[in-house]
Amino acid sequence: MLVVQKFGGTSVGDLQRIQNVANRVSATKKDGHDVVVVVSAMSGETNKLVAYAEHFSVNPAKAEMDMLLSAGERVTASLLAIALSEMGFDSVAMTGRKAGIVTDSDHTKARIENINPQNMQDAIKMGKIVVVAGFQGVNDNGDVTTLGRGGSDLSAVAIAGALKADLCEIYTDVSGIYTTDPRIEPKAKKLDRISYDEMLELASLGAKVLQNRSVEMAKKLNVNLVTRSSFSNEEGTLITKEENIMEAPLVSGIALDKNQARISLMGVKDRPGIASDIFNKLADAGVNVDMIIQNKAHDETTNIDFTVPVSDLHDAKAVVDGFVTRGEVKADSYNKDICKVSVVGVGMKSHVGVAAKAFSAMAQKNININMISTSEIKISMVIDEEYAELAVRSLHAIYELDK
Amino acid sequence: MLVVQKFGGTSVGDLQRIQNVANRVSATKKDGHDVVVVVSAMSGETNKLVAYAEHFSVNPAKAEMDMLLSAGERVTASLLAIALSEMGFDSVAMTGRKAGIVTDSDHTKARIENINPQNMQDAIKMGKIVVVAGFQGVNDNGDVTTLGRGGSDLSAVAIAGALKADLCEIYTDVSGIYTTDPRIEPKAKKLDRISYDEMLELASLGAKVLQNRSVEMAKKLNVNLVTRSSFSNEEGTLITKEENIMEAPLVSGIALDKNQARISLMGVKDRPGIASDIFNKLADAGVNVDMIIQNKAHDETTNIDFTVPVSDLHDAKAVVDGFVTRGEVKADSYNKDICKVSVVGVGMKSHVGVAAKAFSAMAQKNININMISTSEIKISMVIDEEYAELAVRSLHAIYELDK
Repeated sequence: MLVVQKFGGTSVGDLQRIQNVANRVSATKKDGHDVVVVVSAMSGETNKLVAYAEHFSVNPAKAEMDMLLSAGERVTASLLAIALSEMGFDSVAMTGRKAGIVTDSDHTKARIENINPQNMQDAIKMGKIVVVAGFQGVNDNGDVTTLGRGGSDLSAVAIAGALKADLCEIYTDVSGIYTTDPRIEPKAKKLDRISYDEMLELASLGAKVLQNRSVEMAKKLNVNLVTRSSFSNEEGTLITKEENIMEAPLVSGIALDKNQARISLMGVKDRPGIASDIFNKLADAGVNVDMIIQNKAHDETTNIDFTVPVSDLHDAKAVVDGFVTRGEVKADSYNKDICKVSVVGVGMKSHVGVAAKAFSAMAQKNININMISTSEIKISMVIDEEYAELAVRSLHAIYELDK
Repeated sequence: MLVVQKFGGTSVGDLQRIQNVANRVSATKKDGHDVVVVVSAMSGETNKLVAYAEHFSVNPAKAEMDMLLSAGERVTASLLAIALSEMGFDSVAMTGRKAGIVTDSDHTKARIENINPQNMQDAIKMGKIVVVAGFQGVNDNGDVTTLGRGGSDLSAVAIAGALKADLCEIYTDVSGIYTTDPRIEPKAKKLDRISYDEMLELASLGAKVLQNRSVEMAKKLNVNLVTRSSFSNEEGTLITKEENIMEAPLVSGIALDKNQARISLMGVKDRPGIASDIFNKLADAGVNVDMIIQNKAHDETTNIDFTVPVSDLHDAKAVVDGFVTRGEVKADSYNKDICKVSVVGVGMKSHVGVAAKAFSAMAQKNININMISTSEIKISMVIDEEYAELAVRSLHAIYELDK
């Protein structure tokens, strides 16, 4: 079996932890598997370098930032290869360039364009453990680039895809994906398996573990992803394609997003294309609109409600103000004290009454639902923020996720 | 004018010092010159990384060491470029690879094979200040290499040669080359100019400033080298070819080397090739023989005296013991309590009586000369170590170097 193992900053946070990683990697190798390891910078290192740069400039040149920040992962990769060699395991450290990771030129948040895995394949064929510096690649011009937040995960998934690895293990300080946030519902259970699409919808549950970018790439490249803890031997959660999940449960998990604000537009002028106008302008302003609900009012005007991340609220207001000024929207109101709870599960595709159950859970607790949006595998509800935890626990219970 | 400026670890030891370097570089640029800057790692950084590696292995793999150690210079180069950009100077940071530095594959002590200066030239043509990470290059295989001790100086000299720069300034915490060690003779004067060959002979005086490797490369590439302090605006010392030095003084400086041991072989069998045998075997053992003196004794055997660095004494003894065992050498003796004082000056080529003056300086102080060796531009004398400082001061005075 060919396994790609990725270790994040906390997992390689000091020399002892790097040694622990070496022990874990070598155990996999001893079990007869081929291993490619992808590492982040030692925790704190990237922040230190960013602070150095910000000492000189509030807006440092991005190409220079990439040359600066890529140093951290190179250090970890070299050290881990040295540790593995010392333990008697033939190993080789590779930079992103050496590993064949080619990106576009969008410095500090480059996208992987392709991977030429020849060097890695040659090394694997020679029986070597390959240790790759994550988070980095090179553009067509030969300049170092970095992949932005969660970049090392992306490196690992892309490498696993290019090498057609059997498994891509993402090691962090969290043991896997839970049915909901255990800080809200202590009865939350760790999931054994979950589909890519569910994982994407449960983003808030995996926020500390995996970014959607990585899950999307894993889905595209058909990479079996496992998130697990580097501090225990506990099995993690496998994120895979739906077909690999036998007997999918009706509901896999309950996600909560408190970082949403609701914008209500009342008396929107009833002319063709008005909604398109509004949302195009919001998109131009970089506002990330999530849920949208439109109701025709009695007076032939329309009400439009939508949610945006709290951080985009300021920009959204500016756009809406324009329509109010031009008289195309009568009134607008804003509410930051809301949250979104989502029930996610591929099982609900083939079942009826899943949504009804959610609504009755809310009703039992006298929680008012402001907005509803559904997809094939998700029911999202916007409710007042003060009911957030109560709602999560009620939904967790009604779908028997603690069983 | 095109100037290459190299700043060592102490000069970029913290963020404030990097800012100071940015100020100095930008002042040169403002004076209308093109500037290429070569930087070392922040002081302490390379030692830290070496200690990290040694935590895992007493003998870490050299390719991995190069990937590890090259990170330090990349950090400094990026930060300096960011600082310069912030000050309004268009600048670009380059790794050794980007700067076109190609080396052999002798990891951790690679030799520069050639430099393709195209990227640097293009950037200079665009008016940019180029900041190069010193100490590193890439081999034919595309792997990062490092150049060993004094490697950033070598990078600077090689780059200056490839760009046909008018000047290569090496900034350290020392203001230049002195007529002798000021700790021994406080009247020592800083030299304005000195030839490459004198500098090579005065190595001990420049030990903290420049390694012979860099001087040799400067000579080969005809690079005008200046050593000066990054902490003052004092003029430094220009190291250049002899033709550039008008009215060379008779003597430029007095060097002292306490790190020598004398080996005396008595009753060496008088057969053809015996000396060649001895010194070939010493060379095979990696012993660095410096001065050699041979005297025929009255009994038709020969006495051979030579000096080696104290650190090579153990290996040298092992070789000599072989000849004693085989009866080809009657007796051997060793003396570590000696030193070598050297009088260096291109001016002595065309003058007579320079050596006589040195001998009389020794005689005046009743210092016994054990060995003498002369070249066109140097007189070296081996004396008892206890007279070392007295000899240096006497020679400094007799050639009026304090004037």
